[in-house]
Amino acid sequence: MIWLNGTLVDEAAARIGVADRGFLLGDGVFETLRFENGQVRRAGRHLARLKEAATTLGIAFDPDFDLEGIARELVRRKGLERAVIRLTLTRGEGGRGLEGSDSEPTLLMTASALPPAPEGLRLITLDAPRRAPLTLAAHYKMIGYGDNILARRMARTRGGDMAVLLSPDGRVACADSANLFWVTGRTIYTPATDTGALPGTTRAAILEAFALRGLHVEDGHFRRESLASADAVIVTNALFGAVSAASLDGRPLKTDHELARLICDTERDAG
Amino acid sequence: MIWLNGTLVDEAAARIGVADRGFLLGDGVFETLRFENGQVRRAGRHLARLKEAATTLGIAFDPDFDLEGIARELVRRKGLERAVIRLTLTRGEGGRGLEGSDSEPTLLMTASALPPAPEGLRLITLDAPRRAPLTLAAHYKMIGYGDNILARRMARTRGGDMAVLLSPDGRVACADSANLFWVTGRTIYTPATDTGALPGTTRAAILEAFALRGLHVEDGHFRRESLASADAVIVTNALFGAVSAASLDGRPLKTDHELARLICDTERDAG
Repeated sequence: MIWLNGTLVDEAAARIGVADRGFLLGDGVFETLRFENGQVRRAGRHLARLKEAATTLGIAFDPDFDLEGIARELVRRKGLERAVIRLTLTRGEGGRGLEGSDSEPTLLMTASALPPAPEGLRLITLDAPRRAPLTLAAHYKMIGYGDNILARRMARTRGGDMAVLLSPDGRVACADSANLFWVTGRTIYTPATDTGALPGTTRAAILEAFALRGLHVEDGHFRRESLASADAVIVTNALFGAVSAASLDGRPLKTDHELARLICDTERDAG
Repeated sequence: MIWLNGTLVDEAAARIGVADRGFLLGDGVFETLRFENGQVRRAGRHLARLKEAATTLGIAFDPDFDLEGIARELVRRKGLERAVIRLTLTRGEGGRGLEGSDSEPTLLMTASALPPAPEGLRLITLDAPRRAPLTLAAHYKMIGYGDNILARRMARTRGGDMAVLLSPDGRVACADSANLFWVTGRTIYTPATDTGALPGTTRAAILEAFALRGLHVEDGHFRRESLASADAVIVTNALFGAVSAASLDGRPLKTDHELARLICDTERDAG
């Protein structure tokens, strides 16, 4: 069961038109949200980002639709307790070419079982592909995850579970599907979003909670040597929250570092 | 009528699964080819690029399928003479997440009327979005054209027809849907592909034809001032070949420049 353009339909029967510009050109954007304890986590942050993307792209989107209600119904019908809610918005079947023609947007919501948080996570730093700051993908979850998919495949080939990606000028940016924090001594670092890192909802929630408590995070541009000498590395995204990684490029990391635990605990409690 | 996974089917009835990874993640690649005089132009070049992309992404693709025959049949059934052939390859319905699961690829071919070559083309240089050299999009036509779509929309807003995009460090890269050549005096320039410009099939055909005739092209890294002072600017892509632009950022260009005509004539005759 999925929700497509306002209607609950059977997943096997539901189809996207071959002229949908999301399929043909990646002319659309998505959000991936966590559902647990009967509600969608940080729905407001996700909807705000999706709305901003839709405005930038000129795709009609009303963020006041009943995301929570539809998500609950999907989760109930699929017999799930904890779920991944995926919301996809495209320009719809608007013809070919960069400009296309006027069209009704496609809005899709699906629910699937929430995968377990990664354990023993092995990070692998890649020289390429790199993040691209002056693109839409540096701001929004654009349909166009080819580089992330390739990066994950490369990390797997090298015995890892997740790739660390650099900015064009070789600074640390983010992981293939997560933001990064790291701890060296008593200092917490996170790459600035103008490295090309996605401004993640989980990253933002952690930074806001820290700011409220007067805790400082170095939010800036850091060479890969800074990450390579970290005591602990924490990856964050909407699906698993914050997780302390087990190794970076084969070097074991501390997973019980006091500040790593602080980041994970802060994420769990933050709004 | 379209061709989908080996079968000719009615376009209105043909659907893509909502779990197709091309639709969900842009996990796929495409080629846009010109059909005229009963054949597909430069089919070998397009298929070679698509095959290389499929290998890089780990998507099964056999370039020995009957592209020409299927294209002719589509064109005939649609009553076209000159057509755009669009070939789209995705990883298929392989589940969610970066890694997904094993799946049968989706291979789609469509034919539509070839749009007329642009006349009086007005180019507009944008500060952003920029091209991203160390990404798949700098090599292949990945599903993920959001930046090109945004760039075209911005160019239209500013009274233009097509955007000129820069590299991350501000060098000239390409147009939103074409490669660039320009002429100043007796010198022809084109941006190197490591600016993030797509290695276009038309660009390659022109450069090879020039090399065979011992004609030199400056294939390198050029500041936007170099383009801004050009006598003539030529845009090239598979759909319209080579076209001399009418203006750049409001400044009229020469469309009858001898070397501009040489580029256009060379493109017409090149294999």
